[in-house]
Amino acid sequence: MYMPDVEARSGEERVPVTQRSGCCHKYHHAVELIGKRWTGAILLVLLDGPLRFSEVGQLVPDLSDRLLSERLKELEGEGIVAREDGLYTLTRKGRELEPVVHGLKFWAQRNCT
Amino acid sequence: MYMPDVEARSGEERVPVTQRSGCCHKYHHAVELIGKRWTGAILLVLLDGPLRFSEVGQLVPDLSDRLLSERLKELEGEGIVAREDGLYTLTRKGRELEPVVHGLKFWAQRNCT
Repeated sequence: MYMPDVEARSGEERVPVTQRSGCCHKYHHAVELIGKRWTGAILLVLLDGPLRFSEVGQLVPDLSDRLLSERLKELEGEGIVAREDGLYTLTRKGRELEPVVHGLKFWAQRNCT
Repeated sequence: MYMPDVEARSGEERVPVTQRSGCCHKYHHAVELIGKRWTGAILLVLLDGPLRFSEVGQLVPDLSDRLLSERLKELEGEGIVAREDGLYTLTRKGRELEPVVHGLKFWAQRNCT
């Protein structure tokens, strides 16, 4: 069967499982954190600059104030977001997620319907 | 208070919320998909090449066979993973997640404890 979308590789070419790296704890924690419902969306809108609480809500439709507050607290706790003069802003650690967030946005625009 | 980790920006410099893009449906779907428990880990180990079911299990500790089977079915349904001759392999769509997955791994190694 012709499957143009799958790279042809024989079993012989495969890197043996014993020579591969597994999934590490740090990466797993990061996926859980960023992938949590609404967190990815909040990071995306904060990458364009600091926002007030209500402004995040405007840019992320369907997100309740209660959940937004919870997610922002989690991100503050992780040192990804900081609150300053009533504005939520990304810290250096948060801004370093830019390639991941924008990479996923690009992938989604290209691949999701 | 001196906060070295937060970029100084005044309210005046901010891009008004009306001129910003909000979170789109496609990106939101992508975050939910990739961020689902264990999915990010499965993608990471498949980026090194095709694996048998039991090999994915070896490389992603603590993942039960039941959940692994569920996640692989979801990824097949999304056209991200394909099964060929007993091996699970990433499709073109799946391989295009490489910068996102490796970007997050890099970020986690740099920033998570």
